[in-house]
Amino acid sequence: MLKFDEELFLRLVEKEGLQFRGQIEEIVDTISKKGYSNIFMIGAGGTIAMMYPYEYILKSNSTIDVHAEIAAEFLVMNHKHFSKDSVCIFASVSGTTKETLEAAEFCKEKGATTIALVAEPDTPLTKMVDYCITTGSEKHSFDTFFMLLYMFVFRFMYNRNEFPQYEQFTKEVSLLPRAILSAVKAFDKKAEEFAIKHKDTDYHMMVGSGNLWGNTYSYAMCILEEMQWIHAKSIHAAEFFHGTLEMVVEDTSVILLKGEDETRPLMDRVERFAEKITKQLTIIDTKDFAMEGISEEFRKHFAVSINWSVLSRISVYLERERNHSLDLRRYYRKMEY
Amino acid sequence: MLKFDEELFLRLVEKEGLQFRGQIEEIVDTISKKGYSNIFMIGAGGTIAMMYPYEYILKSNSTIDVHAEIAAEFLVMNHKHFSKDSVCIFASVSGTTKETLEAAEFCKEKGATTIALVAEPDTPLTKMVDYCITTGSEKHSFDTFFMLLYMFVFRFMYNRNEFPQYEQFTKEVSLLPRAILSAVKAFDKKAEEFAIKHKDTDYHMMVGSGNLWGNTYSYAMCILEEMQWIHAKSIHAAEFFHGTLEMVVEDTSVILLKGEDETRPLMDRVERFAEKITKQLTIIDTKDFAMEGISEEFRKHFAVSINWSVLSRISVYLERERNHSLDLRRYYRKMEY
Repeated sequence: MLKFDEELFLRLVEKEGLQFRGQIEEIVDTISKKGYSNIFMIGAGGTIAMMYPYEYILKSNSTIDVHAEIAAEFLVMNHKHFSKDSVCIFASVSGTTKETLEAAEFCKEKGATTIALVAEPDTPLTKMVDYCITTGSEKHSFDTFFMLLYMFVFRFMYNRNEFPQYEQFTKEVSLLPRAILSAVKAFDKKAEEFAIKHKDTDYHMMVGSGNLWGNTYSYAMCILEEMQWIHAKSIHAAEFFHGTLEMVVEDTSVILLKGEDETRPLMDRVERFAEKITKQLTIIDTKDFAMEGISEEFRKHFAVSINWSVLSRISVYLERERNHSLDLRRYYRKMEY
Repeated sequence: MLKFDEELFLRLVEKEGLQFRGQIEEIVDTISKKGYSNIFMIGAGGTIAMMYPYEYILKSNSTIDVHAEIAAEFLVMNHKHFSKDSVCIFASVSGTTKETLEAAEFCKEKGATTIALVAEPDTPLTKMVDYCITTGSEKHSFDTFFMLLYMFVFRFMYNRNEFPQYEQFTKEVSLLPRAILSAVKAFDKKAEEFAIKHKDTDYHMMVGSGNLWGNTYSYAMCILEEMQWIHAKSIHAAEFFHGTLEMVVEDTSVILLKGEDETRPLMDRVERFAEKITKQLTIIDTKDFAMEGISEEFRKHFAVSINWSVLSRISVYLERERNHSLDLRRYYRKMEY
């Protein structure tokens, strides 16, 4: 596969990634034992979007009080639920994202418990927080981060007696890297076809819901807009019929990200509409992937990882077909503002 | 002013709107006395967007547990914080919005306390909820709803001893209709100029933050997309630099909605960037409006109303300049899906 080193993927996500389980359980158990009032998941761009699935999962599975907040806004808004008893979780691939760093510093100063997921070793963020998981490589960092976040979030729920299936779930987490690899291979040809077909498409509408809303938002903004300079509107399936639907015409590219959680009927509804109107409908459905060894019960949770990993295949083919490097920026980290 | 009947506005928003104060206080006091665990603000499209300012205001001013949820998603997600002890607030101009009705029915069945703001009398929603404020006219209903929501939200805070300035605030609420009217008049010429200049612009980027994020999201989706069929991307100022900024070039229309809350520096940052890159920058700033009699302390809250009312002036001029009725729909309420 183009720009995909299977061995490297398995080494980073499976072999090294899974090894963090013990460390994560220890961190969560220490915090749970000490007690906490709520969990803040804080990030910017791709890393706040990465938190949204876990905020959704917590809201629909747990009574833990959770807040996903954009770092720059959190810093100024004087959030009244935040206190020294909060647990604050951050993620940053580079460990240098300005707003995330400032938010971590702010939380630390206020006496809250801080946790970070960082890809690069020895970064400012790594050194600042109480607990840091340093994965060691920027490659496949989102795949690893998603997996580590499952470990964190479901352990918090387990410790609150809200997730008795924890042992089974954890066994399945260990199967996730192979499930991702299979999905990526199964989707690769379709990703290439999409990129060939849409290399000149200048606008995409992306629709998602539930625990896939974060990916929907992120792919539109951080990949299509930031990395490919293509206009992209992300719209929640529950909101689609309150405005954006009117923009769909015969040749509008509509991309549906279908997962397997409770909100799937909302996606079905958008699908029924879109297939009547546009000839440019793309459905990316986690149900199409085997996820070997993953139980029916937990597929919906792992859909977040599976969806993100197959979307990433589209990115590399768009890069090739459009001759537009994913690393090219006009402004970000290139000018002051 | 085009399509603006001052007398009608003052009758509906000032004379009749302000009369609901006593009724609202009674409702909130009854609920506060009985006790409640949290507040759910539930809507779809324009009416969930209308709740976002109040969710923000509560988060940054109160320890009341608040959740703004999209009706259709709330219905399926099995929200673990929702219970019979929740207070659920809905708004619907027509009183017939399908998802909002279903959500109200769901909340009612679960034994939660339900409140609705409805413009039309004798609607299904009116009859379903425990407490209904029926304003009686679709005209200026958002202006009235915003005002009633201030009364609700700040009364809840007052009853929790988190807002001792309540009496002063309420006095200022009564000055809001006139403040809106002045703002609308002051902005009208600019709204017309914007519409003339941008009648053929096929894409706008709208940026907002804090308590104006809801308006930003709503204007892009419910007005520009739904009512004018113009592509519009709403982006939070705190997220702007994590993707969407790369789409800004010399002729990109960027509309900044500046308010006066704690997040204003985030908007200043976007402004510094945008003014360097595009020649099509529009800034709509509540600081430009007098808001006579409103204290410095509370201007930031009322900015939500002021901002929405002046944006509405743009709508009527876009309608005229583009010869595109605001009531025209391709699909909404015209087909089954």
